[in-house]
Amino acid sequence: MAGNDSVVVIGLGRFGRALALELVDEETEVLGIDENPEVVQMLARSLTHVVRADSTKEEVLRQLAVHEFDRAVVAIGTDLEASILTASLLISFGIRDVWAKAISEAHGRILSQLGVHHVVYPEHDMGQRVAHLVRGRMMDYIEFEDDFAMVKTTPPASVVGKRLGDSGVRTRHGVTVVAIKRPGQDFTYATADTVVEADDTIIAAGRTRATEHFSELQ
Amino acid sequence: MAGNDSVVVIGLGRFGRALALELVDEETEVLGIDENPEVVQMLARSLTHVVRADSTKEEVLRQLAVHEFDRAVVAIGTDLEASILTASLLISFGIRDVWAKAISEAHGRILSQLGVHHVVYPEHDMGQRVAHLVRGRMMDYIEFEDDFAMVKTTPPASVVGKRLGDSGVRTRHGVTVVAIKRPGQDFTYATADTVVEADDTIIAAGRTRATEHFSELQ
Amino acid sequence: MAGNDSVVVIGLGRFGRALALELVDEETEVLGIDENPEVVQMLARSLTHVVRADSTKEEVLRQLAVHEFDRAVVAIGTDLEASILTASLLISFGIRDVWAKAISEAHGRILSQLGVHHVVYPEHDMGQRVAHLVRGRMMDYIEFEDDFAMVKTTPPASVVGKRLGDSGVRTRHGVTVVAIKRPGQDFTYATADTVVEADDTIIAAGRTRATEHFSELQ
Amino acid sequence: MAGNDSVVVIGLGRFGRALALELVDEETEVLGIDENPEVVQMLARSLTHVVRADSTKEEVLRQLAVHEFDRAVVAIGTDLEASILTASLLISFGIRDVWAKAISEAHGRILSQLGVHHVVYPEHDMGQRVAHLVRGRMMDYIEFEDDFAMVKTTPPASVVGKRLGDSGVRTRHGVTVVAIKRPGQDFTYATADTVVEADDTIIAAGRTRATEHFSELQ
Amino acid sequence: MAGNDSVVVIGLGRFGRALALELVDEETEVLGIDENPEVVQMLARSLTHVVRADSTKEEVLRQLAVHEFDRAVVAIGTDLEASILTASLLISFGIRDVWAKAISEAHGRILSQLGVHHVVYPEHDMGQRVAHLVRGRMMDYIEFEDDFAMVKTTPPASVVGKRLGDSGVRTRHGVTVVAIKRPGQDFTYATADTVVEADDTIIAAGRTRATEHFSELQ
Amino acid sequence: MAGNDSVVVIGLGRFGRALALELVDEETEVLGIDENPEVVQMLARSLTHVVRADSTKEEVLRQLAVHEFDRAVVAIGTDLEASILTASLLISFGIRDVWAKAISEAHGRILSQLGVHHVVYPEHDMGQRVAHLVRGRMMDYIEFEDDFAMVKTTPPASVVGKRLGDSGVRTRHGVTVVAIKRPGQDFTYATADTVVEADDTIIAAGRTRATEHFSELQ
Amino acid sequence: MAGNDSVVVIGLGRFGRALALELVDEETEVLGIDENPEVVQMLARSLTHVVRADSTKEEVLRQLAVHEFDRAVVAIGTDLEASILTASLLISFGIRDVWAKAISEAHGRILSQLGVHHVVYPEHDMGQRVAHLVRGRMMDYIEFEDDFAMVKTTPPASVVGKRLGDSGVRTRHGVTVVAIKRPGQDFTYATADTVVEADDTIIAAGRTRATEHFSELQ
Amino acid sequence: MAGNDSVVVIGLGRFGRALALELVDEETEVLGIDENPEVVQMLARSLTHVVRADSTKEEVLRQLAVHEFDRAVVAIGTDLEASILTASLLISFGIRDVWAKAISEAHGRILSQLGVHHVVYPEHDMGQRVAHLVRGRMMDYIEFEDDFAMVKTTPPASVVGKRLGDSGVRTRHGVTVVAIKRPGQDFTYATADTVVEADDTIIAAGRTRATEHFSELQ
Repeated sequence: MAGNDSVVVIGLGRFGRALALELVDEETEVLGIDENPEVVQMLARSLTHVVRADSTKEEVLRQLAVHEFDRAVVAIGTDLEASILTASLLISFGIRDVWAKAISEAHGRILSQLGVHHVVYPEHDMGQRVAHLVRGRMMDYIEFEDDFAMVKTTPPASVVGKRLGDSGVRTRHGVTVVAIKRPGQDFTYATADTVVEADDTIIAAGRTRATEHFSELQ
Repeated sequence: MAGNDSVVVIGLGRFGRALALELVDEETEVLGIDENPEVVQMLARSLTHVVRADSTKEEVLRQLAVHEFDRAVVAIGTDLEASILTASLLISFGIRDVWAKAISEAHGRILSQLGVHHVVYPEHDMGQRVAHLVRGRMMDYIEFEDDFAMVKTTPPASVVGKRLGDSGVRTRHGVTVVAIKRPGQDFTYATADTVVEADDTIIAAGRTRATEHFSELQ
Repeated sequence: MAGNDSVVVIGLGRFGRALALELVDEETEVLGIDENPEVVQMLARSLTHVVRADSTKEEVLRQLAVHEFDRAVVAIGTDLEASILTASLLISFGIRDVWAKAISEAHGRILSQLGVHHVVYPEHDMGQRVAHLVRGRMMDYIEFEDDFAMVKTTPPASVVGKRLGDSGVRTRHGVTVVAIKRPGQDFTYATADTVVEADDTIIAAGRTRATEHFSELQ
Repeated sequence: MAGNDSVVVIGLGRFGRALALELVDEETEVLGIDENPEVVQMLARSLTHVVRADSTKEEVLRQLAVHEFDRAVVAIGTDLEASILTASLLISFGIRDVWAKAISEAHGRILSQLGVHHVVYPEHDMGQRVAHLVRGRMMDYIEFEDDFAMVKTTPPASVVGKRLGDSGVRTRHGVTVVAIKRPGQDFTYATADTVVEADDTIIAAGRTRATEHFSELQ
Repeated sequence: MAGNDSVVVIGLGRFGRALALELVDEETEVLGIDENPEVVQMLARSLTHVVRADSTKEEVLRQLAVHEFDRAVVAIGTDLEASILTASLLISFGIRDVWAKAISEAHGRILSQLGVHHVVYPEHDMGQRVAHLVRGRMMDYIEFEDDFAMVKTTPPASVVGKRLGDSGVRTRHGVTVVAIKRPGQDFTYATADTVVEADDTIIAAGRTRATEHFSELQ
Repeated sequence: MAGNDSVVVIGLGRFGRALALELVDEETEVLGIDENPEVVQMLARSLTHVVRADSTKEEVLRQLAVHEFDRAVVAIGTDLEASILTASLLISFGIRDVWAKAISEAHGRILSQLGVHHVVYPEHDMGQRVAHLVRGRMMDYIEFEDDFAMVKTTPPASVVGKRLGDSGVRTRHGVTVVAIKRPGQDFTYATADTVVEADDTIIAAGRTRATEHFSELQ
Repeated sequence: MAGNDSVVVIGLGRFGRALALELVDEETEVLGIDENPEVVQMLARSLTHVVRADSTKEEVLRQLAVHEFDRAVVAIGTDLEASILTASLLISFGIRDVWAKAISEAHGRILSQLGVHHVVYPEHDMGQRVAHLVRGRMMDYIEFEDDFAMVKTTPPASVVGKRLGDSGVRTRHGVTVVAIKRPGQDFTYATADTVVEADDTIIAAGRTRATEHFSELQ
Repeated sequence: MAGNDSVVVIGLGRFGRALALELVDEETEVLGIDENPEVVQMLARSLTHVVRADSTKEEVLRQLAVHEFDRAVVAIGTDLEASILTASLLISFGIRDVWAKAISEAHGRILSQLGVHHVVYPEHDMGQRVAHLVRGRMMDYIEFEDDFAMVKTTPPASVVGKRLGDSGVRTRHGVTVVAIKRPGQDFTYATADTVVEADDTIIAAGRTRATEHFSELQ
C-alpha cells in the first residue's frame, strides 16, 4: 500500500491517532503502527492498515515495507529513545518526507540533526494559541506568522448594522473582516457590502495586537 | 496580584509554560504554580510570580490567593488525579473562568461534569491540524469551524502575475486570497488589486476541501 | 436483569462485598463488577451475576447494560482515579440513584461535583462510632442525627427490678429504654410495664451525652 | 497522660483520625501515634498529644509510656504486618482493653488469637449498613443484633395525622415509632400521644424485615 | 497420608528443605508445601508428597487435609506475613504440635501469642554455636543448657597415651571424655580404660568454660 | 584492636549478631561491621567496636585495619554479591582464619574456591537438627558425626529408680547416659552409680538411630 | 560437539556475540548460551549451536555437556552474580581453559581467585587504546607490552618518496615501518627497498612515545 | 583549560576512566565530567579537572566551557538517551573532533547521523580480538585492517636458533617477525640477523590466517 498518496503514522497516542483519523477522513491511505495491542485493536476498523510492531527495529519496519513510503510521521508520545531510534531508521531508509513530534527543545534539535524534515511541538504550540483565548474574548485564534493573526470573535457594537465598507474597521482597528457566519449557517467570505449583525460570528485578520484589541471591543 | 487582568496557570510543562510565557509577552500578569522545583527555578525570571506548590491541597491554593483570581488554567500534564483534584478545588472556589487541558475523552468529560468552563485537547487538535500539512503542499493550516479553513501556501501558476480581481480564484477554486507576503516583508491584507508574484506566500480561505485542493495546484 | 429492584455494585472489596451480599440476603438482585478475577470467582455463587470487567471503560459498562439500571454503587476501594472515571460514566448514563464510597474529603467533593447522589465515608463514620464504644461501657452505639443517639448497654443497678414506668429513667437520666433483650431471647420493644433484670441487655435512646452517661452507670 | 480516662490511638488514617477526633470532642485525652509526619503535623492542634513514631518497636512504645495506658486502639490502615506487630506488643504489655481494626477475616482471626479484646471491621460493617439504604427509602439504618433494627424514615401516609397510640403501627407493621423530629427541631422521644405530621422524620424499631417494609410504605 | 507418623512442612527453603529431607531419611512421611513451582519440582522425587500451594488460604490447606495432621512445621523463610497467616490457620485447626521458625524476636513473640508450641531461631542459634568454634580450637560444640556443653576436639598432650581413668582429666580440667574416635573408625563410648592416642578425636562434656579451656590445651 | 584474640564479624544480622554477642560474652574482643546504621546503633554498647561501613570496598576495610586480624567471619545475610566481594578481599589480605556463612550450595562452593577456610550453612544445619526434635520426644539433639549423636530427653520408665550400672541401658538400648539434671539443679556427669528419677532430664549418647529410639521409650 | 576445537561462549551480549561470530568465521565450532530468548533467536542461524539456558545452574550446564569442553568463555555482561556463579561451575568442572570478562577490578580479582585462567577487561582496555587515537593523528594504535606499540598512520613528509632504508626513520624517529598499504590495495610487509608515497598508509613499530611522536609529524 | 591539547571526557565509567587516565599519563589535559559524585571524588586527584555535572543540559556544558574544546569524547556507558543528548549538544557547539562510544549498531547509526566524527564499539571490538586468543596459542592479537594482523606468540621450533633471514619464515609461513623480546628485556625490532631463542616472545605480521597458523606451530 506504500503508494504515493499513503502515509505511515508511527505511534498512535492522542496526537498520532487524531492525525491518522483526519488523514483517513480526507481519503489518504494510512498505515498505523503502535506497540500497544489495545490501541491497535481499537483502531482496527478506522485506519487502512494498523499493526502492532516495535518500530525501533529495522527488520520490523522493512517487513512492513515502511521504507517504500514517501511520507512518514513519528508520533511517538513520551519515549524519547523510541522516537529517536525510529526517526533514525526512517532517515536511513531515505524517506522523502519525515515528520516527527518533539516533546522538548533538545528532542527537537536531535530530530533535526538526524535529518527529520518537519519537527512539530503540539503542546508548546497549543499552549501559545490558548494563551490568546484565555486573555481575550475571542473564540478562536491563529497566528500564521510573527505578527499576522486571525481571530474568530463576536462583532463589536460599532460594526453592527453597517456595510463593512462603511464601518471603518480597517482604518480604526487595523483589521479586516475576512469571513462571517450567520447563526445556523456556514461561514462565508465577507465583502465590502456585507452587513454584520449582532449575533453573527466573524473572522478578522491583521497584526497580532490589532486582532486582539478588536476582539475585546464590545 | 489577583487583579482582573491576571491569570493563574497551574502546571508548567510544555503546554502550560508556552501558555504562561505567551501571556506574559502580551503583558498579562501570571501566577505560575508547579510541583517541580527545577521548573519553578527555570521560570523564576520569566513569569510575574512562580511558586512551587501542591495544587491539590485547598489550604495551599488559599494561601496563594488562587481563590481570588477570575481566570485559571489547569495545565497539569499527565497526572489525571492531580488535574481533577485541582480543577475540583478551582470550581469550588467559584472562579469565573476555568480552563483545563484534557488528555483523553474521559478526562475531558470529567472536567466538564466538575464544571470546568473550557476544556482543551492539545495533542488531539494538533494531530488533526498537522494531518493537513502532511497530506498537502500547504505551509500552515487552520480550520475555524467544520468546513471553513484557511491555508498558508505558495500561489499556483494560474494566479501569478494577475490582479486577484481578474484571476478567477474565487470562481474556479472556491477560495479567496486573504493576505499576501512578499519575501522579506510582513503579511498584508490582499485586495482585488493585489498582484501575486511567484515567490509570494499567500493565505487563502474557503471550504476545507477547496483550500486543500487549491494548495495542491502547481 | 436491570429491573427496578436490582442494583449494580462496582468494586467488590470488603465494603462492596458486604454490601452486595447483604442485598442478596434481602432478595435484591445484584450485578457485581470487579477487575480482580479471584474476587469474581470467589463471589460467583453468592451474587446474582458477577463479572470481571474494567468499569472505567464506557463500552464495557454498556455491554453489561449498566446504563439501564436505576441504582448503582461505586464501591471501588483505593483507586481514586478508577472511582472517579466510573462515577463519571454512571452519571453520564443518567442513572437515577448513584451511591459512591469516598476515601477522603477531596474525593467526596469531586464525587458530589460530578453529580453522585449519595457519598459514603465508611472509615470515617465507623471511626466516629467506635470512639463511643472505646470510651464507655456500652456495647453498641448509633447517632442518628447530631445529638440524638441510641446505645446498647447493660442496665444500671438503679433500674433493675423495677417497672420502667416507675424507674425514673427518663427524668433522672434523660433517656428512654426502647428495647430489651432477655438472655437467650430476641430483643423486644420495651413498655412502661417492662421490668428490667440485671442480666438483660437494653437499648436506650436520648441526647448523645445522656446516653453515654447512662451507659456508664453501674 | 496515661490516666484512666485517656486512650492511645495508633494509626491516624481516616478511621483512626475520626475516632481520635470524636474522643477529643467528648473530652477524652488522646495520644495519637502515626508514622507519617504530614499526618502528625495536620493533627498537632487537634489531639491532646500526637507523635510521629514507629509503633512496631517495643522501645519506642515504652518511651511513649504506651504500656501504662488502660485503653488502646490499633487503627493501622493497610499494613497487616505493622498492625500485628503493634497489637502483639500491646497485648504483651498487658493493656486491659485493646481494640483493633481488621481488614480481612484472616486479619481478624490473628488479632483474636493474639488476644486483642475487640476487633472491628469498618468496611464490612458499613457495607452491610449501606445495603439497606440503597435498597429502601430509609434515611438511616442500624441493626443492633440479628433481627432487631432501627430505621430513620419519613412516615407513611397511613400514620400521618393520628396519635401513634391510635395508628395501629405496631399491630399492622410490627414496628414501634421511637422518636420523632419536626422540621427545624431536634429529635424527641415519641409517646402514644404523639401525632406524626407528613414532613416529620421518624425512627422506628422492630424486626429487620418489618422496619424495612415500613420504610417502603408511602 | 495424615497418619500419626507423618509431618507437614510448609516452606521449603534451606531450613524447611533440610528438615524435610532429614525426616524422609528417618522414614517419616512428609507433605511438603511451597509457593515456588521450581522448588516443588526439585523436591518432587525426594519427599513423600510435595505440592505447590498458597498456605495462607484456609480452603487450600483444607483441600490438602493439613488440618488432619498431628505435627506441622511452618518453615516459611522471610515473609513474616505469610508465616503468621499460616501459623494462625494451623492453630485454628487445632493441630497438636506446631513448630515454626522465627526470624526475629518480635516474630517469635507473635508466634507464641498465636499459640505455636515450638518456636525455633536457626540463624540466632547457629550464630551462638559457631562463636565457640571461631574462638577456640574445637571442631564442634554444643551447649545443651546454660553452662553444660560438649566439644569435639583433639586430645591435649597431657591426656595422650594414658588410661582415661588415670589421666586426671576430670579433676584437672573439669571435663569428662564421653566418646572417642580412632582415625578411620566410628565414635565409640569412652570408659575409664580407654587409652587416648594423639591422632584420635574426642568428645568431652562439662561446664561451658571448662570444655572451652580443655579444647585449647595443646 | 586486631590482637590475636580478637575477631572481626562482618554482617550483623541475626546470625552475625548472635555470634558476635556470644564472643563478647566469652571475653573475646569483636569488631562488628554492618552497612545498616540502625543495626550499628543498636549494638553500639554491646560489642567492643562496631562501625557502619561498606565491607565490599578494599580501602574501607584497610582503614578499619581489618587486614591485621587473624580471624574474620563473613556473616552477610542475603546479599550474595556483597558476601563474595567481602570474602574475596579478606582472602586477598591473607587472613589466617576466614569463616563465612553460605546461603546455598553454589554460594558455599564459590566461598571455598575463593579460599575461605570454614563455610557454615545455618539454615540447613538447623533444619536437619530440628527434624529430629519434630519426629521424636527428645528435647534437644546433636549429631557430632555421621552416626554418632546425643539427645536430651526424659528417662524411660525402665531406667527410673535404678543405678545406671544396673539398668542395662547400654546393652538393651545401645546408648550411654552421659549427664543428668535434677529439677532446679545443673547438669552433672553421670556415673554407673547414678540413680535416675522420673522427673530428671538426661543426655544419652550413641548411634543416631539408637538415641532416637531411646528417646521414644516411655 | 564438545570437540577439542570447539568453544562454549556463555553470555551473548555485544562482547560475547562479536567473539562467537568471529570464532565461527574462523571455522571454530561454537556453543552459545544466553538467558534471553530474543538473543538466542537472533543468533540461531549464525552459531553452530545456540540455546537459551540459565548458566548458573549446574544441572543445566551438564545437560548441555558444557563440562566436556576444553575451552569456555564467560562473557556475561553486567550481572556480577551470574558471572561468578557460572565461572565457579566451569572451574569445578575442571575445564582446561576458562576465559571471563570482568567489569571491575574486584570482579577480576574474584574470577582469578576462583581459578579462571584468563580475565579480560574490554571497556578498560579499549579506553586506553582509544586514548591514543584521540590524542594523536594516528588511525589505529596497539600496545603489545609496556612501552612497545604499533601505530597505523599516514607517512610524514620527510619519509615520502624515499627508500625506507634511506629515510633515516629508525635513527631519527626511533620507529620502524613494518607494513605499507597503497590506496586500493592490501597491506604488505615493508622492506628497506620500499618507497613510501604520500597517500600510503603505514604501520610503524617502536617505543610507545616514539610511535606517537612519529604519527604527529606532518 | 580548553587549550588545543586538552580533551573533555564525558562519562567516567570503565571505558571513559581508562581513556582519561591514559591521556593524563601522556600529559594531555583532561576535563572529566560525570553525574556520579563518588566517581568524581575518586578521580579528583588523577585528572586535570573533574566535575560532577549533568552533561545533557546545554547551560551546564557552557558553564564548563565545553563548547571551547577542540576534542571531546562521549564515554557515557549505558544510558542511550544521555549519550545522544550529550552528543547532540557537542555537535551543535561545532566541536571539531567528537568521539563517542556506541553500545549497539542502532546507537552507532544515530551518533553518525547526528554528526559524531568517530564512533567506537569497545565490547564488540574486544570480543573480536579475544576470539583469536581463545582459538589459538597466541598471547596477543591485533587486526589493523581486513586481512592484515599481528600476533604476539612464542616462536615455533623450526625458527629457534636460526637467523631470521635464514629461517624461511616468510616463505613457508607467510609472516614476518617484526619484533622480539628476550626474557627480562624490552621488545626490540627484529632484523634478518636476529636469532630467535626458544624462550623469546615474538611479534609476527602477515595476513590474518597466516598469523594464526603461525602461532599454532609448536
